[in-house]
Amino acid sequence: MAVPAKPRINKLVVIGVGLIGGSFALALKKARLVKEVVGVGRSRKNLKDALRLGVIDRAETDAAKAVADADLVLIGAPVGQMPGIFARIAPALSAKTVVTDAGSTKQDVIAAARRHLGKHFPMFVPAHPIAGTEYSGAAAAFAELYRDRNLILLPQKETKAAALRLVRMAWQACGANIVRLDAAEHDEIFGAVSHLPHVIAFALVHQLGGRRDAKRLLGFSGGGLRDTVRIAGSSPEMWRDICIANRGALLPLLDAYVDELKAARRALAKGEGDVLEGMFRSAQQARARWLVKKSK
Amino acid sequence: MAVPAKPRINKLVVIGVGLIGGSFALALKKARLVKEVVGVGRSRKNLKDALRLGVIDRAETDAAKAVADADLVLIGAPVGQMPGIFARIAPALSAKTVVTDAGSTKQDVIAAARRHLGKHFPMFVPAHPIAGTEYSGAAAAFAELYRDRNLILLPQKETKAAALRLVRMAWQACGANIVRLDAAEHDEIFGAVSHLPHVIAFALVHQLGGRRDAKRLLGFSGGGLRDTVRIAGSSPEMWRDICIANRGALLPLLDAYVDELKAARRALAKGEGDVLEGMFRSAQQARARWLVKKSK
Repeated sequence: MAVPAKPRINKLVVIGVGLIGGSFALALKKARLVKEVVGVGRSRKNLKDALRLGVIDRAETDAAKAVADADLVLIGAPVGQMPGIFARIAPALSAKTVVTDAGSTKQDVIAAARRHLGKHFPMFVPAHPIAGTEYSGAAAAFAELYRDRNLILLPQKETKAAALRLVRMAWQACGANIVRLDAAEHDEIFGAVSHLPHVIAFALVHQLGGRRDAKRLLGFSGGGLRDTVRIAGSSPEMWRDICIANRGALLPLLDAYVDELKAARRALAKGEGDVLEGMFRSAQQARARWLVKKSK
Repeated sequence: MAVPAKPRINKLVVIGVGLIGGSFALALKKARLVKEVVGVGRSRKNLKDALRLGVIDRAETDAAKAVADADLVLIGAPVGQMPGIFARIAPALSAKTVVTDAGSTKQDVIAAARRHLGKHFPMFVPAHPIAGTEYSGAAAAFAELYRDRNLILLPQKETKAAALRLVRMAWQACGANIVRLDAAEHDEIFGAVSHLPHVIAFALVHQLGGRRDAKRLLGFSGGGLRDTVRIAGSSPEMWRDICIANRGALLPLLDAYVDELKAARRALAKGEGDVLEGMFRSAQQARARWLVKKSK
């Protein structure tokens, strides 16, 4: 039997103990890399859940008080809250404390960290785990969420090597594959493969659910619609923040998507079956080529 | 032990031995309700698969020849082919032969049947099984496809009671729940919960798959995108036909969807987080209310 490794993180502070932050805490606990997890959040109910489920060992409502003497701080809050959180914790950070985040947008988070963390910015390691479910909150967290999933690391030119090492080690312990990306490329890629699909799914359910006959209509839906809009179950607040934060990338993607729909509409109105079939076929082939083999 | 029931259908002809027609044949065989299944199709390879897998007992390429003396004919071909099939089989149908279909659009199919089946129209029972996967062809067929799924029956004023009884009995033997709908209501409902989502999914993969960086981009996709576009794996020909056939219902639905996206775009461009969040939240709630409990 392997001898359990000694914890390398005496104090981990998770700000925003939801699916993302909670799963990070659980994974590090399972890997025996962390001694104490302090959770910070706005919802007492959620913090109670987190304590009861062993996601955290101690709850705090004041982020500045919580981070004192921490080895690692993970910010798992919606990206719209990050500037305020950086500003609040900056004066309370010890020199040794490494800060990282799990935000879905990176240019805005990095800019906010640069602005608010000041001289502590070299200890900040921007990151984004490509994982999630349509469930939210500490009760949805599980230690295996990150296993074999990509973790994007975006160290900046100022980032200290030791800080980068600690964050990389922590995510590797969660089972994630570490991938490096530039922040602008990151935001373009995830605007396309994640933020745009979320807007598409939310908009479809908003349309159908807003109809007077919504109950009867949706009662006839099959697995196709349910899969298509599964991600419309995600947190509205989190996705509001992501879309607003990444609107620079998202707006042109959304425009291009509306153009696709208009092209389909034109073909449909003219009864141009060959145009429609060509579009459907190339989509079917692209899916088969790039999206099927990756299925779990 | 139960004594196996005697087959009530001596000869079943399935025109279009794909996922839908093949699964119908397999389910009736499993229920021991059918003695012989004759498959008609355009692809020799697919008919060979169907024979090898026991989906059909005999293959025919000529639909008119195949239907001679049949008790039941199921047309499981793309809806665009139905007028031609009706015209082809009409002169060859015996007086006793009940004809049904599994087309995803109903107003057009019923009109074509009325036009081409002539005096045999009272023996035609329009139907639509609400089931399917993203796979096509006889090899994708399985006997359990219809278990606990809705089967829409749309008897017309001319439809003979005995014909309706046979078709209802056959689908009940497949395990389906029988639901009656008016054809116009059917086309509006499935335009909304099925045809529109397919166009949305095809358009998204067409957009992303058409980019130069498609391979790299889609390599970063997660389960969200994969679920959202799963139905873009469906048959392009079948969906071309459905969209064209149901464009009367689909065009206004598509316009309303583009309006939803434009409203989201406006809110995004103005940074109106509250508008965006309101839209996302009501979508999330509609999904929770009407789309989650139905999950398998």
